[in-house]
Parts: sequence; structure tokens; C-alpha cells
Amino acid sequence: MMPGTGWRDVPGLHPALAIAAEASVTAVNDARLRLGPGDLAEPVAMGADATPTMRVDRIVEDAILSAVEGTGVNILTEESGWIDRGSAYTLVMDPLDGSANAAAGVPLSAFSAALATDGEFTQALTVWTETGWRWSAAGDTSSGLRTSGRTSLDGAALSLLRPHPANPQASAAWWRAVERAARVRILSSSCLEAALVATGATDAFADACTDTHRLVDLASAVVLVRAAGGAVRDVHGRPIELDTDLTRRWSGVVAATPELADELADCLAQAWRAAA
Amino acid sequence: MMPGTGWRDVPGLHPALAIAAEASVTAVNDARLRLGPGDLAEPVAMGADATPTMRVDRIVEDAILSAVEGTGVNILTEESGWIDRGSAYTLVMDPLDGSANAAAGVPLSAFSAALATDGEFTQALTVWTETGWRWSAAGDTSSGLRTSGRTSLDGAALSLLRPHPANPQASAAWWRAVERAARVRILSSSCLEAALVATGATDAFADACTDTHRLVDLASAVVLVRAAGGAVRDVHGRPIELDTDLTRRWSGVVAATPELADELADCLAQAWRAAA
Repeated sequence: MMPGTGWRDVPGLHPALAIAAEASVTAVNDARLRLGPGDLAEPVAMGADATPTMRVDRIVEDAILSAVEGTGVNILTEESGWIDRGSAYTLVMDPLDGSANAAAGVPLSAFSAALATDGEFTQALTVWTETGWRWSAAGDTSSGLRTSGRTSLDGAALSLLRPHPANPQASAAWWRAVERAARVRILSSSCLEAALVATGATDAFADACTDTHRLVDLASAVVLVRAAGGAVRDVHGRPIELDTDLTRRWSGVVAATPELADELADCLAQAWRAAA
Repeated sequence: MMPGTGWRDVPGLHPALAIAAEASVTAVNDARLRLGPGDLAEPVAMGADATPTMRVDRIVEDAILSAVEGTGVNILTEESGWIDRGSAYTLVMDPLDGSANAAAGVPLSAFSAALATDGEFTQALTVWTETGWRWSAAGDTSSGLRTSGRTSLDGAALSLLRPHPANPQASAAWWRAVERAARVRILSSSCLEAALVATGATDAFADACTDTHRLVDLASAVVLVRAAGGAVRDVHGRPIELDTDLTRRWSGVVAATPELADELADCLAQAWRAAA
């Protein structure tokens, strides 16, 4: 166990979150026993988010959808999109964040979901698939989460999405952030990296202007990191809000404080514009 | 559990390896309960490897040295350097790989050691501190390890040490490798990243010409990855060999096959020279 992290669920968490998480972890571990890396990673369809669906994504999502059906909540999810059951509650979920890690055997994948109540994100649960470690929040109550409190980018510990050399503007932004940080990590699991901002283990996490982030990558971070004292922004200032159009994209910035979120977003946006 | 990985020790492993690993994991977890991130990361001395020693490094190394004393093996370790007990066996160890991760609460740190017999690396054990997962090899026998078998860099999954923008030649090499890879990760734990090459979860891991790697970062990789069908090189062709001078440095390349090791080392070296 590490300082500053919480491994339990907060009281009052909607049962749909825990049911979905358990179904996800069970399905991933079962799929790994039955299938090799190539089979797990094979593209089997195009998802509602307009990215290819790996077989393991499909297996996990199907297991979750079956498990949560009895809860009656609406679902917004990577592959199947929007399932409207007329509920006041909507589960916005990434059934398996870090699918490429999970398929290859890099033990950094997660179930991650936020619950929206009447359109506002109110609860979240992220579960690290390979270890069962959990981070949750409901409103301002979290499972012991507290960010590092860092307010400045110079010398910060940053997690980033991988650089995209074919995109010169995004590459310039990526490199500029690296120049200012003291530590840089690329774990290839947005939801775990956001959880580590919430625990204070790292200071910030960002998509450096590649517009890769979908709502399912950021929704749980909005709740977890805010409850821990941090902030979530988009580099270009677009609001991160409930929307059933899963083709929308953001370049998310998840940071220990609102000040650091602003400084990192400004740093990335300025470098991106300067390279135009 | 994931396909292609082994969680047990191979038969015939020297007891000093297991004793050291257990002492390391116990000491790290105990230190985390007692001390916060700032205390764990505080520099307390300069190590025999000419890098600053964090308090957590010192705590863990002291615990291991005390635990293995009865085994009578020689020790070569990060902080204390060379302890000659006149044995044919030398334990070359990184008591806590990924110290910065461990201190901050990023759950990616490891105990990692190789055993040299009459000067040759013959056995190795790497233990992931936060989960207890273990990878070991003795000679050609390993705990179920098998690399991905990839032979070409284009499209490979790469792990890298973080880029160093203040070093233009190393930065050019880093970026060139990223341009050719399909996936890039920075986990900030060389020994875990090498273990993931040995399991086939990732194709290669490299220090892109920063000469950051010390013998203790590479010794266990030499045994684990070789037993799994892969290869370990230095970018500039320097032999990775037992040496009690811990100020020596390498830019290590750990790869799924000898072909991929050569191609990645050549790619990095060429970009490094071209940027001179």
C-alpha cells in the first residue's frame, strides 16, 4: 500500500458502478486465459467512438452490458454508444482502458466509469484490472484521494499520451511540456494516469494536442480529480460535458490544481499555435 | 494473470536472490507506511554509482545487506558498491529500481538482481514491489518467459527512458526511434520494462544514448531476456560485463531478438551521430 491512495469504494456509490467493474475485471482475466495477444487485439468492428474495436474490448463490454442490465441505468460506452433506458442516471464508461496494454500483457489496464445524474457527473470508479486496486468518489467524498497540490509546471511529474511524430504541431506541444517537466511517463492508460494524479503520485496528465481523448477517457477523471482537489481541462477550452455523440474529441489536461491545469493547457496550446 | 508471463521462481535459484527480494519488498512496504513521499525521496548520500541516494534506496539496501549476510556471497550494489566476501558468487543488484516511482506512489518499482558465477551472469530474479509478481531465470531455464520474437523495429512496441531535451544528440536518437515504433511507453522502471520484454508484452526497451544505465540496471535483463530468446546490447557496442566500478555507464538496448537489438541499436547510434 502506498501513502495517499485509497483502495476502497466510498459510501453511497451507485451499485451499477461496482457491478460493471466486477464484470469487467472478471471478463478480462477470463479472456486472457482463453486467448493469446493476437486474438485479444484483433479488430472486430468499428466502435461508436469511430475507432476500431479490439476483440477484448468487445468481450468486456458485452459482459458489462449483460451484468448491468438489471440496474436500469442509461449507458454511454465506447463500442455500443448510447443506450437510453429513460433513467435519470447515465453510466459513462470505458469498459477496458488501455486495451493495447491488456492485450499485449503490459499490466496497466483499467475499468473506468463515471455516473451522470441528470446530466452532471457525480460519481466515479476506476479499477486497475491487473491488481484490483480501486479509486472512487461520490460528490466531494473520495476514497482518501488528495492530489500533490503542485501549482507550477516547471519541475512537475507529467504523464503524457505518446508523441505523434506525424503531427508537427502536436509534436511541438509534446516536446515543450517535456522540456519543462522534471519527470515524464507514458503508461498508455489514460484512466490509470488520471487516478495517479488524484492520489498525488504524479502532478499532471495530458493529451498534448492530438485530440485523442473521448468522453469515456475523461469522465471519471473529472469526478475523481476534482474530489481530490485537482482540475480537468481541455487544451483548447472545450467544455468536457455529457454528450451522446461519441465522435467528439478533446485534448484533456488532468492536473493536481486548477493553477497547474491552466499553466499546462496554456503551455501546450501556445506551442501548438507557434508550430502552425 | 496474463499469457506468456511467469510468476514463480525457477528451480535451482540461489537462495541469496530470494532472500534479497523478500527483504526488499518488506522494507519498501514498511517504509511507505512510516514515511511520506518527500521523506522517501530525500537525498541522503551520494551512492557508489555516483548518483544521489534517496532515503528509500538506503532503507531498502540496508535491509537487504543485513538479510543476505549469512549467505556469504559477494555483493555489488547501487549505494554501497562492492562487498567482497571471497565467494565464487556475486549478487549484482538494484535494491529498488524505479525509486522515484516508489517514493511518489507510482506503483511501478522492482527489486532486481543477477547472480554472477565466477564472473559470468547465470541467474536473475526481478520482483515487482507493488504486486509481488516475479520473473526469474537460471541459465537457459526461465519461469515461462518467451519474448514476442519480433525482428524489425518498424511497428514495434517500445519502452524508452524519458527524453532529455537538454541533450540534442540523445534527443534526436530518442525521436528517431519513436518515429519508427507503433507504440511507445515510459514506465520509469528499467527492470520492469526489461521483464516485459522477456514476457513478450513489449518488443524492446532502450536508453536512447543518454548513458544512464548502470550495470545494476542491466544485469538481470541480460539473464532474463537471453533465457527468453532475446538479446541485450549497448548502443555503442560496449560489452555489458561484471565490473566492480559502478561509475561505468551504458545505453542499454533490450530486445525480443538479436536482430531487433541490432536494428534498434543501429537506429539510435546513427541518429545520435547525425546530430553531432
